[in-house]
Amino acid sequence: MQEIKPWGQLREHLQTDSISVIKAYLDQLTAEDIVSIVSHLSEQERLRLLSVLTAEDAAELLEDLPWVQAMELIKEMDSKEAAAIIVEFPSDEQADFLGEMSEKGAEAIMQEMPEEEADAIRELIQYEEDSAGGLMVTEFLSFEEDATVGSVVKDLQSNAEKYEKYNLQYIYVTHKDQFSGVLNMRTLLLSKPDVLLSDIVLRSARTVQYNDTLYDLIKFFDTYDFYGVPVVDDRLQLKGVVLRKDLREAQTDQVHLEHLETQGIVGGEELRTMSVWLRARRRLSWLSVNILLNIAAASIIAFYQDTLSAVIALAVFLPIISDMSGCSGNQAVAVSLRELSLGVVRPFEVARVWMQEVSVGLLNGLVLGTLIGTAAWLWKGNIYLGLVVGGALSINTVVAVSLGGTIPLVLKRMNVDPALASGPILTTVTDMFGFFLALTFAGMMLEYL
Amino acid sequence: MQEIKPWGQLREHLQTDSISVIKAYLDQLTAEDIVSIVSHLSEQERLRLLSVLTAEDAAELLEDLPWVQAMELIKEMDSKEAAAIIVEFPSDEQADFLGEMSEKGAEAIMQEMPEEEADAIRELIQYEEDSAGGLMVTEFLSFEEDATVGSVVKDLQSNAEKYEKYNLQYIYVTHKDQFSGVLNMRTLLLSKPDVLLSDIVLRSARTVQYNDTLYDLIKFFDTYDFYGVPVVDDRLQLKGVVLRKDLREAQTDQVHLEHLETQGIVGGEELRTMSVWLRARRRLSWLSVNILLNIAAASIIAFYQDTLSAVIALAVFLPIISDMSGCSGNQAVAVSLRELSLGVVRPFEVARVWMQEVSVGLLNGLVLGTLIGTAAWLWKGNIYLGLVVGGALSINTVVAVSLGGTIPLVLKRMNVDPALASGPILTTVTDMFGFFLALTFAGMMLEYL
Repeated sequence: MQEIKPWGQLREHLQTDSISVIKAYLDQLTAEDIVSIVSHLSEQERLRLLSVLTAEDAAELLEDLPWVQAMELIKEMDSKEAAAIIVEFPSDEQADFLGEMSEKGAEAIMQEMPEEEADAIRELIQYEEDSAGGLMVTEFLSFEEDATVGSVVKDLQSNAEKYEKYNLQYIYVTHKDQFSGVLNMRTLLLSKPDVLLSDIVLRSARTVQYNDTLYDLIKFFDTYDFYGVPVVDDRLQLKGVVLRKDLREAQTDQVHLEHLETQGIVGGEELRTMSVWLRARRRLSWLSVNILLNIAAASIIAFYQDTLSAVIALAVFLPIISDMSGCSGNQAVAVSLRELSLGVVRPFEVARVWMQEVSVGLLNGLVLGTLIGTAAWLWKGNIYLGLVVGGALSINTVVAVSLGGTIPLVLKRMNVDPALASGPILTTVTDMFGFFLALTFAGMMLEYL
Repeated sequence: MQEIKPWGQLREHLQTDSISVIKAYLDQLTAEDIVSIVSHLSEQERLRLLSVLTAEDAAELLEDLPWVQAMELIKEMDSKEAAAIIVEFPSDEQADFLGEMSEKGAEAIMQEMPEEEADAIRELIQYEEDSAGGLMVTEFLSFEEDATVGSVVKDLQSNAEKYEKYNLQYIYVTHKDQFSGVLNMRTLLLSKPDVLLSDIVLRSARTVQYNDTLYDLIKFFDTYDFYGVPVVDDRLQLKGVVLRKDLREAQTDQVHLEHLETQGIVGGEELRTMSVWLRARRRLSWLSVNILLNIAAASIIAFYQDTLSAVIALAVFLPIISDMSGCSGNQAVAVSLRELSLGVVRPFEVARVWMQEVSVGLLNGLVLGTLIGTAAWLWKGNIYLGLVVGGALSINTVVAVSLGGTIPLVLKRMNVDPALASGPILTTVTDMFGFFLALTFAGMMLEYL
């Protein structure tokens, strides 16, 4: 008895059935199932699936998928189809997708959109991705101060469909196109129809600037319990609204990307639905730098070949020293990256972090050195071998831990991405120094080994 | 000219000034500055700072600090002072703090709290930390169906102060203590005073179960655009409300912890304000397992000492093979962890991931093997050395990449934390196999080397 896998079922539906059957099949799946099933289809099948759905349903499906996967699919569609789907996204996501494409590809898609919408996206694309401008949506309601409550309520009622996807917690009030304040829905509904907005608007409302960073915004939403905050430019013109939920998403994505970078996944997120060539090439870009650094580090060993051939047992311990120093150092790197992101430590505090890590390095170096030294001593019955190996690891652990703690701070000050560069720099330096220590000590004690 | 650092200023204020001066000094700082400054104080100074503030201000300060740092301080306070501060926290955080303490410590603090509040916390503590029960707050408004709009509005007005910290988007309606639906504030305010809640309650409202997981909840809030969702137990009794903002925070924390684990920071977050002993010990718990695994892997080299002494140049390349295989494998581990968390891949799909990674491994293995092989060839002018070293790294890269991709899935199926265990298992296996390959190949070609 062979069970038909859910992606097999969808595949069959795609080949034979009508749109309504496919839609009905998708509707009974959870978002979680859809993500898993779509990942099993080939690119052709995924594109076929999107083309049979209405633009609205296709947009909904794409929003369930991981961002890079949705992006890949949009790149493969013809511009007309892509435009119809992208129009269905919230404005911040429209800009995210088109901003990530080649200028030519994005322009081709925007040509197929309503003029007004395309212009709005062209403006949004210019903002930095993780700034208030890049994170804001432009779906918000604003009215001039001299409007009456009655006219606003009427507008809300007659445009109910258009506003359906808007965030309707607040209404923004402007005066001659400049932001003047916020009105919450409750106040509006409880006011008499002939009251002017200027009489009930809350003028002390907070705003953020379009170039405020993700970090600024996180602090803002930590401080104030709002669902969204209006974004203004230098001339106080209202540009959009940053919603709390979009912000948290951006933050989680950033943490994930940082994590992937420390593990050598560069150039953005990698999913296995991407082509093998692309994945291999992106990974290789990081690996090839690493192998050069590794060769440089190992060249230290080449200088000491005579020592090594005299004490061949050392060759067993060199990879251990290299790996353990890397482990100890990377622990300190991880703590520093975390402390930097929490704001507990600042880039200029190199000396403070260095001193704190030296203590940890000394303690752990002592323990690890003793362990490895004892192992070496017991294995060869030669206490000097233990001293050489254990001594080298002990000292190198102090170096690795204190360097690991401080490298991210120094890189941050130099405006180099610490998540990406800390690991390779750390392991190269500690490899070199570790090999140097072990082989120099061995050279000094050669007659006893 | 010596600038006084901001933590120096706070220190001075603490020694000489009145509470109001200290409070005024803190008030003009940003949350970001406070985090940085407090991290520079000694534990005694931090405790002194908290003791001079009112409980409310102290609670606010603690909420600005990273969670572990706040936790450490609460543990050091006497129970009375701790109780006064904890009472000021939202209910989910009260449970988080007390749930993390020893049972005895937590009980001592709860003894100092109002009976009712302590009982509520005792109940909350029992829920799993990352479940709906663990994430929910118990500050919500609920009324029986047979109440009138007028009586509810009156209650809201007369208890305005008490409800200040409540999330007032929704009012929950119960019938004989069972959840029956939701009422939004707008509907309430627009209804006549003598209307019964049962006439206007929205009965189709969604709920979650108290044991729903963080993952379930994230999917829920991705699907529905609510600010909060009521949590019920098996008998449909309303237990609390999970707020969107708390959920995102929990998710970001989880990602951070996973990241720290992969880098060998275990037992929760580490900050440099923690004692050196504790930090060294926690890091060592992971390092000491690693050194044993390293010794096991390196013992392979010990078996081939004869080969190695015949071809001492190999000793230069063994650490490179070890490190590069680890790098390649860890890239695949990172992608798998990410895909697991996105739901793009499921734990049973080992074969699929394995096949996908083999292709990437073959491509990158070929490139890396050629690079290192060429380096070996050029260095010693011996093409056979190049073949041995390059061949070993090529094959081992395929092994490392395909294992790296699949180990997290296998561990997940075995209910072992993949973030924690994948790295050490991977590097041990690939070290052993890499050393074995290089030394076996060398043994076979010994006469040409």
